[in-house]
Amino acid sequence: MKHALEEVKALTFDVFGTVVDWRGSVIREGRRLGAAKKLKVDWAAFADGWRAGYGPAMDRVRRGELPWMPIDALHRMILDDLLAQFGVAQAFDDAERAHFNLVWHRLRPWPDAGAGLRRLKKRYVIATLSNGNVALLVDLAKQGRLPWDTIFSAEIFNHYKPDPQTYLGACELLGLRPWQVMMVAAHKGDLDAAKRCGLKAAFVQRPLEFGPKGKKDTAPEPRFEVNARDFLDLAKKLGA
Amino acid sequence: MKHALEEVKALTFDVFGTVVDWRGSVIREGRRLGAAKKLKVDWAAFADGWRAGYGPAMDRVRRGELPWMPIDALHRMILDDLLAQFGVAQAFDDAERAHFNLVWHRLRPWPDAGAGLRRLKKRYVIATLSNGNVALLVDLAKQGRLPWDTIFSAEIFNHYKPDPQTYLGACELLGLRPWQVMMVAAHKGDLDAAKRCGLKAAFVQRPLEFGPKGKKDTAPEPRFEVNARDFLDLAKKLGA
Repeated sequence: MKHALEEVKALTFDVFGTVVDWRGSVIREGRRLGAAKKLKVDWAAFADGWRAGYGPAMDRVRRGELPWMPIDALHRMILDDLLAQFGVAQAFDDAERAHFNLVWHRLRPWPDAGAGLRRLKKRYVIATLSNGNVALLVDLAKQGRLPWDTIFSAEIFNHYKPDPQTYLGACELLGLRPWQVMMVAAHKGDLDAAKRCGLKAAFVQRPLEFGPKGKKDTAPEPRFEVNARDFLDLAKKLGA
Repeated sequence: MKHALEEVKALTFDVFGTVVDWRGSVIREGRRLGAAKKLKVDWAAFADGWRAGYGPAMDRVRRGELPWMPIDALHRMILDDLLAQFGVAQAFDDAERAHFNLVWHRLRPWPDAGAGLRRLKKRYVIATLSNGNVALLVDLAKQGRLPWDTIFSAEIFNHYKPDPQTYLGACELLGLRPWQVMMVAAHKGDLDAAKRCGLKAAFVQRPLEFGPKGKKDTAPEPRFEVNARDFLDLAKKLGA
């Protein structure tokens, strides 16, 4: 049986890259720190390295090499490694590392995100579905004025995306069947994993996620129910 | 070590009776249904019976007599019993019972709740901490325009209040120590359980929770950090 788009009651959103510009935010804060400490660091490369370390770190948790831990703790492990790699380990004491690590709680939304979410919220339940921990997602929402109805995190399910327990867990907590829920993400792998669980999928192009020179697959795909330029375009295409 | 009220970063709220007027809402909808079906039912007694069945039903889950189930399922079991007790079982088919059962998703906030929460949200993270299931709490928030930062439910912890797993689980997800979190409730047992876990406590009087003739303990208690008349008074007393 084919379920229609009209049956969708809730939208779950990937956050890093889809709702917030992690790269620009980390670079901005790194440059400020670097200037204050008179360090020579390529902060764009640093931001990319931080983000690149995160998939492998989650995989170590998945394989049982590391115990379950929230993303804050993974980010900190990666940060400690990166500071050494970039030759600036001496420049950051523990309190400074703890503070810099929380840059992931201070990421700024893409310019269309808040306005798009406010429109979508009138018609749908809107929730995060992110590998970020709950405290991080609450901080992002408060600082970025993101009007979530609720926050779902890998931390609640003790599984990271793209494990099916995350997508199906969100549907269960919403009291909805998978085809009543649409995953919204700028990453095709996330959407394909959601679709395998029976959710609908909306792809949002975020051409600048990896910076002006970064490689990013932004091609619309007919296998996704919606392909949108940004959240305002998504609201328009969903009639919200 | 005594922790000061200034260390509180987040407020967690009981919902039934504290944020929403369950009794008035159930009576209102019952009367409407009763009039349409020409039934003679004391809907105030029906509402009180529905609520009274809920503690014992949770206890059956706690003792393992029933598997874990969300409050929606417990409410439905109690509803089926009550319709028989009130002699109107024949008047409700399955779809009508399912719809009436969801009256608990349509409860109206007390008049001060929305305005008080909006003030408190500027200074604190505000979250539910309720035995209601997530879908129920999301529905209440959307219909009542309650601006939660996030929703915590017994369903996330697989434990009902007053089990310590609920209070401590909320603190952990918020990334806060217990003394940085204040439980807000109109029920002293809920607050005492939170305090045993190290949280701070704010008592809010809700003299009409059990109706104009109902018995309700509204006496302020010096053991709670704050005693407030309503959410606006709570905001004032917390300087929000």
